[in-house]
Amino acid sequence: MTTESRKQARVAVVGGGVIGLAVAWRAAVAGHAVTLFDPEPAAGASWVAGGMLAPVAEAWPGEEAVLELGEESLAQWPQFADELTTDGADPVMNTAGTIIAAWDPGDAAQLEVLADYLRRVGRGAELVHGHELRKRVPGLTSRLRAGLVVPGDLAVDNRRLLKALLLAGERRGVDYRREWVEAVGPGTVRTESGEFDCDEVVLAAGARTGALHDELRGLVRPLKGEILRLRARRTSLPPPPMTVRAVVENRPLYLVPRSDGEVVVGATQYEAGFDETVAAGGVRELLDAAERVYPSVAEYELAETAAGLRSASTDNLPLIGRLSDGVIVATGHYRNGLLHAPVTARAVVALLDGGELPGAARAADPARVEKEASV
Amino acid sequence: MTTESRKQARVAVVGGGVIGLAVAWRAAVAGHAVTLFDPEPAAGASWVAGGMLAPVAEAWPGEEAVLELGEESLAQWPQFADELTTDGADPVMNTAGTIIAAWDPGDAAQLEVLADYLRRVGRGAELVHGHELRKRVPGLTSRLRAGLVVPGDLAVDNRRLLKALLLAGERRGVDYRREWVEAVGPGTVRTESGEFDCDEVVLAAGARTGALHDELRGLVRPLKGEILRLRARRTSLPPPPMTVRAVVENRPLYLVPRSDGEVVVGATQYEAGFDETVAAGGVRELLDAAERVYPSVAEYELAETAAGLRSASTDNLPLIGRLSDGVIVATGHYRNGLLHAPVTARAVVALLDGGELPGAARAADPARVEKEASV
Repeated sequence: MTTESRKQARVAVVGGGVIGLAVAWRAAVAGHAVTLFDPEPAAGASWVAGGMLAPVAEAWPGEEAVLELGEESLAQWPQFADELTTDGADPVMNTAGTIIAAWDPGDAAQLEVLADYLRRVGRGAELVHGHELRKRVPGLTSRLRAGLVVPGDLAVDNRRLLKALLLAGERRGVDYRREWVEAVGPGTVRTESGEFDCDEVVLAAGARTGALHDELRGLVRPLKGEILRLRARRTSLPPPPMTVRAVVENRPLYLVPRSDGEVVVGATQYEAGFDETVAAGGVRELLDAAERVYPSVAEYELAETAAGLRSASTDNLPLIGRLSDGVIVATGHYRNGLLHAPVTARAVVALLDGGELPGAARAADPARVEKEASV
Repeated sequence: MTTESRKQARVAVVGGGVIGLAVAWRAAVAGHAVTLFDPEPAAGASWVAGGMLAPVAEAWPGEEAVLELGEESLAQWPQFADELTTDGADPVMNTAGTIIAAWDPGDAAQLEVLADYLRRVGRGAELVHGHELRKRVPGLTSRLRAGLVVPGDLAVDNRRLLKALLLAGERRGVDYRREWVEAVGPGTVRTESGEFDCDEVVLAAGARTGALHDELRGLVRPLKGEILRLRARRTSLPPPPMTVRAVVENRPLYLVPRSDGEVVVGATQYEAGFDETVAAGGVRELLDAAERVYPSVAEYELAETAAGLRSASTDNLPLIGRLSDGVIVATGHYRNGLLHAPVTARAVVALLDGGELPGAARAADPARVEKEASV
């Protein structure tokens, strides 16, 4: 089986999170015959996400390849969203920007490290006093030490996005099979109901991808995260107009407003295996930090608590590339699954079309960690 | 219409919380023809309760009539539960007892007031050091100042109780009509689907009772409360074996273990009209206090958050008695609906049988507040 000359491949996508759905839709648009396997597509970690498209706010010294991949994907997002609106539905982006608030002097020092780093790599980010932040977001507490104003980062309504992708795929002919994949091989996928033949398998099962291919064992692990959905009341101060991130006693927090009056508050992060239940301590932490930074949320309705499993690689860069004959991987997106969806889908479609990994996605080739793992 | 000579009355019970269900079941047992109106019986505030049957732990100087009514009802509880088990199902009582922990010196001072009061009214309650509490409940934090060991108070699984009452009523011939009552008059109940004739109406609609009868306007108000349900994990310390109450920086807290590994944590208390949504600040408060008192709950699964509306009278004593010709009231049970169910059902049945309010229920006659209200 060669990929170079193939015009239309039969593609089996394993996993219906944001990566699997984006790959399936874009592959179908590119003319491939796509079947997507997931017992419950448009759920999982992508359903629990905050929806920030935030390569700059998420940047950190030493993770230049992550920043580069993120910025390349962010640049693709507007067109991706436009085409998605045409094929499926509007994923509802928020372009109002992002601020990052620091609670205490230690937290402010962390913002300074980030600001210095962003200056060094040529991205502007303005360090301001706490009272300057309150001018931009009046509901913030007056007790903040400092803040960073981050231009460019966007946000998207993750749940509208997933539904739009599901619909766009359907309209472009993606066949959704609502069942688990138990094993994959070159050109084959085995489910409860039998074997499914194809030309290419795309592994996009997030944290569960590690169990599906020998080469991935130990390279992708689940990293649990909890989020809350709060709903403003008629009588309470409205949610912040833009994404508010904060560092509160060394713990990251975000409040991402949605167009319907909800705010997504996140996110905890810890190892808990494949457990997807919400922990009392995680919710307490988020509520406590959110109330300190934006006090009016205490009055908001707690509409939902949820947990998801991010898929973390060993270096926080995703694994995108050919794994073996007939098997492509697209997982390990860590905190950046929504952000990386366009660049990942484009890279996988390039491989399906017989090409090479394009642009910044080259750094995400799994060869880098397979090599390390075998040392 | 006279009640003295009647053998079997046609009774319309308005409201299917613990009071309405208990009244309906006991009235049916006494031979009356009972119809209960509630769009969703076995729900509401009773569904959200902690389940403590705690006249002593809830006692407070100045509320002697509440303590007396509570103790009379507590004494009736074992037989009530036995008969309920026979007619319906076991409501699963917990007889392991109650401790009350104090977080800081101010909280400890509150316990001393309660202990003094209990001694004065002849109920023993042992004031102990924090480390003595930990011997009884090993999962408690070592930071507690003091505690009170309360003998006698019981707990019941409120959800099993409601289901058991529903079933017992059904078996005894109660007719459940799943619709709202819009208005009541002497010997009549009006619902969306029409008028329903009866001999006696029993108003047991909790916080909503005030809107159903002119005499009650302003005498019953909703008092919102939030609870959490936490579920222990296999790997975490198990829940406390008995009811743990606490005062944490002047706020009451309780953790009531259930036989299935869950713990009910409650309860907030504030005026919020008829709003039954869960507030973020309320959940934060409960999680924070619970984690301070019993640290392992941080690891527990947050299985549920819920809010309910207690029906509060003006003096914390329920309103039980004849309101007008053909109309009996049984509401305003505040934090004690489950505790007061047996004594309330017995009192209402006595009225239906043509008798007077028996025992401690005499103090709950609505005449006391009607009089005040008209001054």
